[in-house]
Amino acid sequence: MAFSGYGAGPGGAPQQDPLFGYFSAIAGQDGHISADELQRCLTQAGITGSYQPFNLETCRLMINMLDRDMSCTMGFQEFKELWQVLNGWRGTFVSYDRDGSGTIEGQELEHAITSMGYHLSPQAKNCIMKRYSTNGRIRFDDFVSCCVRLRALTDQFRRRDTTQTGNASFHYDDFIQVTMSI
Amino acid sequence: MAFSGYGAGPGGAPQQDPLFGYFSAIAGQDGHISADELQRCLTQAGITGSYQPFNLETCRLMINMLDRDMSCTMGFQEFKELWQVLNGWRGTFVSYDRDGSGTIEGQELEHAITSMGYHLSPQAKNCIMKRYSTNGRIRFDDFVSCCVRLRALTDQFRRRDTTQTGNASFHYDDFIQVTMSI
Repeated sequence: MAFSGYGAGPGGAPQQDPLFGYFSAIAGQDGHISADELQRCLTQAGITGSYQPFNLETCRLMINMLDRDMSCTMGFQEFKELWQVLNGWRGTFVSYDRDGSGTIEGQELEHAITSMGYHLSPQAKNCIMKRYSTNGRIRFDDFVSCCVRLRALTDQFRRRDTTQTGNASFHYDDFIQVTMSI
Repeated sequence: MAFSGYGAGPGGAPQQDPLFGYFSAIAGQDGHISADELQRCLTQAGITGSYQPFNLETCRLMINMLDRDMSCTMGFQEFKELWQVLNGWRGTFVSYDRDGSGTIEGQELEHAITSMGYHLSPQAKNCIMKRYSTNGRIRFDDFVSCCVRLRALTDQFRRRDTTQTGNASFHYDDFIQVTMSI
């Protein structure tokens, strides 16, 4: 146990962050977690609350969204960043899930997408809604999958939209890398 | 039971196709199946053999790949088309899964992608391999997810590559529709 009186000096900050406890217990020596470890970490840290834990596929997407070094694993800084983003998405979801059923309606997903600042046509929002709903309703896990992919794909598109006009050109190989990795 | 002596006349053919039995028992009156019904249908028809049944997410992707009328359901013709495609993918997978473990290696996935005719850089194949592997190995279910998405994304890209030079332009809204629906 490090002496806590030194404050948040170099190497001191992580120990004081309650999230670091969940993270380091699972990450162990290498300081990185894989998708299945992220799944355990998020469950133990209680991010899903009374909702079902994230499935492994969603955890893989989360790692890929922030995986700048293409290691397929996540360090503590990325985990903290993810935690913040997830909290925002949970807040949005909870605000629509008024009866606490763990699901929201398709139309509410469309509203949520707009409220997050995405400018999409009704047709695009409908596509997304159909893709992520089960019998017309969207579970929290699917909502997060949707948010992860929408954010990552928009980021990748924006980087290639050099004129900032909402248009971008892709070479086939690049297109496949962008779309198949998330 | 329809009289079989009339041969493959109008309305006669489907009854003679053994696949139609599995399909119609689950589709019922409306003649269409949703993702969870497809899951049952494929399991009962035995496409996965000794491999684990497809998960619901993979079944959703399969429906979307062939969903020309955007109904999120699948008719018998689309089911037959899917069956043929799946048989091809299973053959490819089995040829690499020599020990019958139900998984193949990452490098074998890369070979399989090349053998299916996709011209992708080592980097792109590596991206795909990382995305679909668990501890370095790819399960049949993930292999099929990968094949479904690669096929559908390539089809969509090709339609926009009007000069057939391997380059295509997307508007943001269209890009999101294409990439978020599969």
